[in-house]
Amino acid sequence: MARRPLDLDQAFAAARQGERGPLAKLLSVVERGGPQARRLGQLVHPHTGSGYTVGITGAPGAGKSTLTSAMVADLRRRELPATVLAIDPSSPFSGGAILGDRVRMVDHSLDPEVFIRSMATRGHLGGLSLAAPAAIRLLESVGREWILVETVGVGQIEVDIAGDADTTVVVVNPGWGDAIQANKAGLMEIADVFVVNKADRDGADGTRRDLEYMLDLGSRDGWRPPVVMAVATDATGIGESWEAIAAHREHLSSTGALETRRDERAGVELERILTEQIRARVDELRAGDAHADLLDRIRARELDPWTAADQLLS
Amino acid sequence: MARRPLDLDQAFAAARQGERGPLAKLLSVVERGGPQARRLGQLVHPHTGSGYTVGITGAPGAGKSTLTSAMVADLRRRELPATVLAIDPSSPFSGGAILGDRVRMVDHSLDPEVFIRSMATRGHLGGLSLAAPAAIRLLESVGREWILVETVGVGQIEVDIAGDADTTVVVVNPGWGDAIQANKAGLMEIADVFVVNKADRDGADGTRRDLEYMLDLGSRDGWRPPVVMAVATDATGIGESWEAIAAHREHLSSTGALETRRDERAGVELERILTEQIRARVDELRAGDAHADLLDRIRARELDPWTAADQLLS
Repeated sequence: MARRPLDLDQAFAAARQGERGPLAKLLSVVERGGPQARRLGQLVHPHTGSGYTVGITGAPGAGKSTLTSAMVADLRRRELPATVLAIDPSSPFSGGAILGDRVRMVDHSLDPEVFIRSMATRGHLGGLSLAAPAAIRLLESVGREWILVETVGVGQIEVDIAGDADTTVVVVNPGWGDAIQANKAGLMEIADVFVVNKADRDGADGTRRDLEYMLDLGSRDGWRPPVVMAVATDATGIGESWEAIAAHREHLSSTGALETRRDERAGVELERILTEQIRARVDELRAGDAHADLLDRIRARELDPWTAADQLLS
Repeated sequence: MARRPLDLDQAFAAARQGERGPLAKLLSVVERGGPQARRLGQLVHPHTGSGYTVGITGAPGAGKSTLTSAMVADLRRRELPATVLAIDPSSPFSGGAILGDRVRMVDHSLDPEVFIRSMATRGHLGGLSLAAPAAIRLLESVGREWILVETVGVGQIEVDIAGDADTTVVVVNPGWGDAIQANKAGLMEIADVFVVNKADRDGADGTRRDLEYMLDLGSRDGWRPPVVMAVATDATGIGESWEAIAAHREHLSSTGALETRRDERAGVELERILTEQIRARVDELRAGDAHADLLDRIRARELDPWTAADQLLS
């Protein structure tokens, strides 16, 4: 299928004027990766730094989507625009297609001040780890301030992406062991705010106690994550969730930790880009004749693979 | 702690004479990785290709260690030497230390014709994926023929390592859903032989049926994995397990698939080494002054990370 080439500069200018169509197209460029995504990243870079990202993660079924939707509604009640980036590495669908499935988000789908986008991998290794921060930067460069980054599962990539947010919200449910599961999945280390969702169920107090107990064991950047009790389906605890996020933002700003964190992320991203560029070069090397010849010589035991790698790289 | 430098040539020559001490030291070199492991790989390479590896994998608790031990006993009954490489990515111990814990292996620990070694990661990314095949090659280059590669868990790295063997044995237990679990963990695709261990328990026939049903759905390289019923604790089914492995070996040899598989593995390994070499170069780049300067310019938004990566790589 031929794809009409998108004029990146024109689309970016239009997106910065608030047009949604061009923004959606640019997000597809980011998702596909490759040279166009790179060119777009260069356009976007000078305009970044004004958004604030909130990562929302937790086990499947914890109610992340419902919580996200309720948090969007709360932003809208306060007349603030809202942006949601849903990260779904396992989805075979592209952004637009999955959106229809996100039933609870449908409430917001006609609101012009709400922008929701799902993002899947495009099959290339490390794809989402590069694409998600690039998408966030694109969103902030077109003037979107509050960007909620919701992950569908708790795979390593998703935990990493949620943990890369300015404030990371970890959603758990009442029930024996849920707090311990969160600990196992590496969620304790990335949590800035805990939300115990479905807090009207049995065991909510126990889960809160478990969390507080684990939080007693250590804090990060001088911040102790608050534990908010919520029932997202009837909007209970949503205001408190936002208050906890605002308090964390204030803490990060006043201590200078916000800049430090963002500087660290810039370093991590440069590393990912370096690795990706180099990986692309390895793929090129592997496609060449020299690679096939060297492989034959390795198989004939004339040459060891380390020396072969050196010869390819030189 | 200062480590006395090991004379690789001398140790390798001694290991090829059958000395166990030098072999154990060389395996530690492989495990640590780095330039010495690379030098050793170069020494070893011309002498590889004569061993036969049997991967043994399956869920924790399936009885892999017991089966491995019984298979070692069977080799010894036939007066064949036996070699076991136990892959344990989660173990914080180095090879020698964990051996004492492997109680069931103690039967063999005084037998000079049995060589058992545990291998853990040494913390570096992709470590085991590179170190395990290098260890196998070292073992075959010193004349060890039957090499059993047992994995402790079924993490992706362990499944990959077990699947890289010449013959891969997947161990399951009776019980509803165990075959389905094996399918989920990606074990159906790598299995050349199934062993239903603890086959004296309820549900063994059902598990066999489930496996046969899934095997009806497709085969690989014209080979349908046999399903062997075993009770490793009393050595039932061990002879049959070895017969199934021998039949698979004969199949691979007669169809030429053994060479094809090994050629493919050589390609995969060259790719891993290329990636690892490149990663080492990225680490070098990141340690330099140029990297720090570029990072400052990215943070100041004077420069985008893609252009910075290009500048570092050029």
